[in-house]
Amino acid sequence: MSSVDHGLDRAAIDEAFLGTLGFSGWQLGNSSAILAEEAGIVGRPVTRVENACASAGFAIQSGVRAIQSGARDVVLVAGVEKMTDAPSERRRYWLGVSGDTEWERLAGLTFAGVYGLMASRHMVEHGTSREALAEVAVKNHAHGALNPNAHFRKPISRAEVLASPRVADPLGLLDCCPVSDGAAAVLLAGEDVAGRFTDAPVYVAGVGAGSDWLALQERPSLTSLAATRRAADEAFRTAGIARRSIQFLEVHDCFTIAELMAIEDLGFAPPGGAAELTLSGATSLGGSLPVNPDGGLKAKGHPIGATGASQAYEIFQQLRGAAGPRQVPHAEQALAHNVGGSGASATVTVFSVGRT
Amino acid sequence: MSSVDHGLDRAAIDEAFLGTLGFSGWQLGNSSAILAEEAGIVGRPVTRVENACASAGFAIQSGVRAIQSGARDVVLVAGVEKMTDAPSERRRYWLGVSGDTEWERLAGLTFAGVYGLMASRHMVEHGTSREALAEVAVKNHAHGALNPNAHFRKPISRAEVLASPRVADPLGLLDCCPVSDGAAAVLLAGEDVAGRFTDAPVYVAGVGAGSDWLALQERPSLTSLAATRRAADEAFRTAGIARRSIQFLEVHDCFTIAELMAIEDLGFAPPGGAAELTLSGATSLGGSLPVNPDGGLKAKGHPIGATGASQAYEIFQQLRGAAGPRQVPHAEQALAHNVGGSGASATVTVFSVGRT
Repeated sequence: MSSVDHGLDRAAIDEAFLGTLGFSGWQLGNSSAILAEEAGIVGRPVTRVENACASAGFAIQSGVRAIQSGARDVVLVAGVEKMTDAPSERRRYWLGVSGDTEWERLAGLTFAGVYGLMASRHMVEHGTSREALAEVAVKNHAHGALNPNAHFRKPISRAEVLASPRVADPLGLLDCCPVSDGAAAVLLAGEDVAGRFTDAPVYVAGVGAGSDWLALQERPSLTSLAATRRAADEAFRTAGIARRSIQFLEVHDCFTIAELMAIEDLGFAPPGGAAELTLSGATSLGGSLPVNPDGGLKAKGHPIGATGASQAYEIFQQLRGAAGPRQVPHAEQALAHNVGGSGASATVTVFSVGRT
Repeated sequence: MSSVDHGLDRAAIDEAFLGTLGFSGWQLGNSSAILAEEAGIVGRPVTRVENACASAGFAIQSGVRAIQSGARDVVLVAGVEKMTDAPSERRRYWLGVSGDTEWERLAGLTFAGVYGLMASRHMVEHGTSREALAEVAVKNHAHGALNPNAHFRKPISRAEVLASPRVADPLGLLDCCPVSDGAAAVLLAGEDVAGRFTDAPVYVAGVGAGSDWLALQERPSLTSLAATRRAADEAFRTAGIARRSIQFLEVHDCFTIAELMAIEDLGFAPPGGAAELTLSGATSLGGSLPVNPDGGLKAKGHPIGATGASQAYEIFQQLRGAAGPRQVPHAEQALAHNVGGSGASATVTVFSVGRT
């Protein structure tokens, strides 16, 4: 794709946003200032956005608004997390406080535990099988094996997932995303200036976001994330397109059950319908609606603050036909779905190769 | 002012932003989710913004953009910090990592130390007197005594400031803002819908922001904050008004020297000119350009994430003529100035009683 891009002088960047959870008191603080220095844009405003695992999804939305408002032409949005340099005991604590404390964490519930409850209930309500959950991991590892930036590039079998040590019933170790280090960035430009940087831009067609109660017990359903539903409805409304126009999804599969729920909440399967879609191969590369062609959080990894930006990166590569062996054929529209705090917040961003 | 406001159904709030530093791993995380619950707006997107002591200033700018973009009509912007429930040893650490670590914190420099260096250099370059620094504290305590929401409502004398225990030469204890708990919130509404909520709105006339190197040694000057200068220039440019239209300032006086530098960097005195302005009484209530009529960070307190929102609150009260004994007469335009990380970032927001 070398001929279509025209390079970027960083002086063209008007503003930046950074999504990161950060481990305050352990790592450096004031991360927006550090981004300004390391990106070579000192002087420009930089804002750190932190919404747990959806930090970069919300940072992208802030960046989009900065341009839509007419205030900025070019905005850098980055996401980053360095998770492995903290002791696991403390890291568990830092991550844990992004979930509900009063009703869940102090009772011993972890994020795996919360999603384990969702999975159990999904099985009861919809007859979802353990095999369908496992197939999400198998598929995403197969996709990750095609992604040079993936944390895990190793295919796994359904039998391995089913035999993996139980973490939070019914979820095993291979149903859980790993602890990863990572960073990703996207450059947003107003429609009228994007041509200065590339002949093959990807459009942000629509954005949406929502919130929900942090504790599961406050929600009417354990098998659906209202924040995702709200975010998706807004994103499709602002994009002005229908779900059938979408060729693939980047969803927040922090646990295998999360991918099934995402497919349903985003409106690509009826409640309980994602398992069959997954087992049929429809969500695999080569299927009718590939989900997480980059390997998803499960195999690409889940460096908290970076995840939302890495989803946008994957969509950018795919919509430009530059995804190599994991290319989704004829991909022209796709969405990214980023979740914070087991569904307390969510963003959905619809991307398109042309104006919608 | 009871008759001019029409109340607010919280269902009218489309989105919210929260400015807070937070002590992660000590206090609850996912603070945006907590705001959604406590504000009764679960479902609406809420974004946490963290830019050290300028968190709420940047949150306000994100809120303004959400409306300017056309995406939202009504946006809540809150700021909060609960500082006193952490042990002082750990609090010092959490605050410290918002400054430069590599060149300053690990060498033993605290925020007081950084501003002490600025003050020393300001004295050398501009002949600024110890008395002028002290007078900032005397004035802000006098103002705080008139503010029922101030942390300190106790007037102090210049002799007391000069005799207070030395913290970081030349700054004494009474040159430093306190450790405070606090919260503040503002409601932003699009011009076309504001009339539903009040007959006496205050306009956000212009916003500006900037960044700078985190470590003092990287900056060309120790006596001026480039981030403030940049933010002010942008705010006045977008507001389309001149500095002479402003009747009073809310500035980030985390230390007495910071107020002098702010007055100069904002363009209301030449370099070195703020000391004389202060000693003349011009920046006191009753003077020609009152600064920090609410007592400023020095006396009102500096609950980190709340400060930028509390500045907007003060300006709102003043421009509506509702500031009681600390009212600035005929106040029609004012600005708020919020700084993060000893000048690594800054926002300036210009407010007006009418369109500019």
